[in-house]
Amino acid sequence: MPSIIIFGASGDLTSRKLIPALFQLYRKKRLPADTNIVGFSRTEFSHDAWRGQLSETTQKFAGKDFDPKLWEEFAKKIFYHPGDLGKDEDFQQLCGLLKELEQGKSTTRIYYLATAPQFYPEAVERLGKSGLADEKDGARRIVIEKPFGTDLESATQLNEDVHKVFRERQVYRIDHYLGKETVQNILVLRFANSIFEPLWNRNYIDHVQITAAEEVKVGRRAGYYDTAGVVRDMFQNHLLQLLTITSMEAPSRFEADYVRNEKVKVLQSVRPMTPEEVAKHTIRGQYKGYKQEPGVAPDSQTPTFAVAKLHVDNWRWQGVPFYLRSGKAMSCRTTQIVIQFRDPPHMLFAKEKHKHRKVEANRLIIHIQPAEGIQVYFQTKVPDAGMAMRQTTLDFRFDNQFAGTMPDGYERLLLDVMQGDASLFARADEVELAWGIVDPILQAWQEHEQPPMAEYDVGEWGPTEALYWMGNDDRYWLDVCPVLKSSAAHD
Amino acid sequence: MPSIIIFGASGDLTSRKLIPALFQLYRKKRLPADTNIVGFSRTEFSHDAWRGQLSETTQKFAGKDFDPKLWEEFAKKIFYHPGDLGKDEDFQQLCGLLKELEQGKSTTRIYYLATAPQFYPEAVERLGKSGLADEKDGARRIVIEKPFGTDLESATQLNEDVHKVFRERQVYRIDHYLGKETVQNILVLRFANSIFEPLWNRNYIDHVQITAAEEVKVGRRAGYYDTAGVVRDMFQNHLLQLLTITSMEAPSRFEADYVRNEKVKVLQSVRPMTPEEVAKHTIRGQYKGYKQEPGVAPDSQTPTFAVAKLHVDNWRWQGVPFYLRSGKAMSCRTTQIVIQFRDPPHMLFAKEKHKHRKVEANRLIIHIQPAEGIQVYFQTKVPDAGMAMRQTTLDFRFDNQFAGTMPDGYERLLLDVMQGDASLFARADEVELAWGIVDPILQAWQEHEQPPMAEYDVGEWGPTEALYWMGNDDRYWLDVCPVLKSSAAHD
Repeated sequence: MPSIIIFGASGDLTSRKLIPALFQLYRKKRLPADTNIVGFSRTEFSHDAWRGQLSETTQKFAGKDFDPKLWEEFAKKIFYHPGDLGKDEDFQQLCGLLKELEQGKSTTRIYYLATAPQFYPEAVERLGKSGLADEKDGARRIVIEKPFGTDLESATQLNEDVHKVFRERQVYRIDHYLGKETVQNILVLRFANSIFEPLWNRNYIDHVQITAAEEVKVGRRAGYYDTAGVVRDMFQNHLLQLLTITSMEAPSRFEADYVRNEKVKVLQSVRPMTPEEVAKHTIRGQYKGYKQEPGVAPDSQTPTFAVAKLHVDNWRWQGVPFYLRSGKAMSCRTTQIVIQFRDPPHMLFAKEKHKHRKVEANRLIIHIQPAEGIQVYFQTKVPDAGMAMRQTTLDFRFDNQFAGTMPDGYERLLLDVMQGDASLFARADEVELAWGIVDPILQAWQEHEQPPMAEYDVGEWGPTEALYWMGNDDRYWLDVCPVLKSSAAHD
Repeated sequence: MPSIIIFGASGDLTSRKLIPALFQLYRKKRLPADTNIVGFSRTEFSHDAWRGQLSETTQKFAGKDFDPKLWEEFAKKIFYHPGDLGKDEDFQQLCGLLKELEQGKSTTRIYYLATAPQFYPEAVERLGKSGLADEKDGARRIVIEKPFGTDLESATQLNEDVHKVFRERQVYRIDHYLGKETVQNILVLRFANSIFEPLWNRNYIDHVQITAAEEVKVGRRAGYYDTAGVVRDMFQNHLLQLLTITSMEAPSRFEADYVRNEKVKVLQSVRPMTPEEVAKHTIRGQYKGYKQEPGVAPDSQTPTFAVAKLHVDNWRWQGVPFYLRSGKAMSCRTTQIVIQFRDPPHMLFAKEKHKHRKVEANRLIIHIQPAEGIQVYFQTKVPDAGMAMRQTTLDFRFDNQFAGTMPDGYERLLLDVMQGDASLFARADEVELAWGIVDPILQAWQEHEQPPMAEYDVGEWGPTEALYWMGNDDRYWLDVCPVLKSSAAHD
């Protein structure tokens, strides 16, 4: 029986993600009995007023799974405590409410920081001072939302602040990408199958492309975004997480520190970049019209698009570049990992029709979202055409082979926190190493202004510079918008 | 401009396969201009009577592609010459007809032996005597249908007979399996892609299953079949061809002798079996009711089902058994090759739900017919279920990714003969080696009567003995009837 205390409860995340996820867990009978959910925020609400508001938002975000009767039961678990992170007495009152709800039973408490990031240190400190981190009456865990710092220095400072109050094993740094089924499936794909891992190295892989493209513009997050930019918003967390999961060695067990040790090893192996290398191995871009967005500085130098070529300097990956790419206002929304294999060493069918064209090498695409599945591109003989061949695909789609909708990442991650499983959460060193990779890029851009900021049209795959830059490596981006319905016959 | 002379022209093969295939080639404008097709057979027909009969049968077997107007054009290329293989004067007359049709132009002649096999030596001898094998007025090629001999001795004798008249490069021993798109695609799959070949060996493959199951009973071929049995009918040619194509090394070029040298190397590497090994490593079966079929001897010991475990003793395949299986009156018609990979070396997800069940190893299935495509069985994370996993499939189907119907194997093979490309035809040594593999099995069965003949119910996957026998190797048959329409969502 856990208590889940959400700080910053009146914010978007709570209504859009956390409460719908907890409601789904309840609906699926996975929420432990006697769970209490307590919102803490400055806004004044009665318990019932908050429940009423959440009922509406949950209905909206849980969609067809919303059952009013079930909600009524679930809503009894929800409480609200108006309070200020800055005030000791508000924390004392929160203490009182929790004790009342927990009725003296040993209870796991989960403190979820959903506030603006600048309040994290204060919230943590106050939790410590109020004795709320003390584990004598049950486990105490803290969940910290991204962004975890804004650079290496601030992240290190935040880790220090957190560690003054919580031990590392109590800390759950959340990245909802790791809650995605398709991301976890990368580990299953690699390590529960025997046919991929033998190919998963420099002998067979030419390069890896990791793309997280957003179709939306900066929208109402402009204020935050303009101070962050695409690298802090997407690279430091999501893209580097995808990189580690794609490239890590097999842990001996799927347990938190076994997995995180391997991820840390990857991040430690990423080759650091000098400013000269940043100028050569990255591209930054801004979509046209970004400076005119409300909330954006009119002379903003914030990139809304970036690519970076990273190298993982270890035995497995030496010489295999990882191209990371993300941006807003792009052609479509898609997150995908492309494993581009090398050419076959020798083309024995080098006859007639093949002479003048290159046979495309194999490719494995892991579709993270919104398409969810796997595709293997391979050459097939074109029927009825001598030995001519064409690229075709082996396809796996979750929606074809599994019934039901895919759960939101927060469901899985919240359940993991309740069960004390930190496998899918970032460890202190992991977060710092990730900042250590992106900091030099951000610094070089700022201090040396190289490469120059490239503009791109809304609805494109980023600036044309990114295209030519890839072409200089004799490679090309796989720019394909996901097909969301099952594929039909085509030719 | 070739002349195609079909001996045994009044038989089934001509009307069901050869003429429809030639008509399709004509329709697709692949038949060389001025091609002549000459039927030779004892039945008396005028040119027009034969054309009329072929018009009907072609309409039946070419289906929707039959266009009467096109047929009228095509039929002008068809001629008939009644004659007896035993009579010199009939060959002289045939000579005259051909000269007349060819009008003194240098012409490639293709002699297609579609007679009963016992007439092959006589036909070849007569071709020689009549000077029809002489190449001074153009290439002379001979196509010999299966069965090529009934054992090693007779096959060797037939090769000798053929070589008295034709040089090996003139000889095209046809196995229509090699004309199938899906069979040729095995070579493309293996050698035009870089991701399969690294796995294609003893390090990653546990075993290979090659199944050619027929749903039909012995039917009107009972007389022939009862003297042949499943091993001569299916193993010596089709199954061993599939084995060689699956297991051969990459030739340096896709050219006749390059390919055939590699196939021969495989056959030379197949481990010979002593009678004791035949007793242990094969199963023979007869479907219930076979002895009562019209045309079958009432005490027939002819197997209608067999399995054999073969080993390819070379560096790549040592320790990887190839299970060959074929039979009549089975559950469904399917020809498929199953590449069964080894288990992942270490199961790091060994938790909760996996403890009590074995995670299935990967498998690649090449569907030859009637389904045409490729499936890769692999483990996927079950969405919304911790780290539970389930076997799912990556699918490729020709009918999904290519428009149009698949051509019959004879189209390709006839075109290859016209173009002088023997890549997909068996060479003399290949045929003899194949007989050398099956002969000891047939002999051991006959002389030692071990293993005993097993009976099986019509519509099963052969006798239960085959099931237990496989179980003794800690393996199981993949008994799956092909899904002929595109797969839909299932769970």
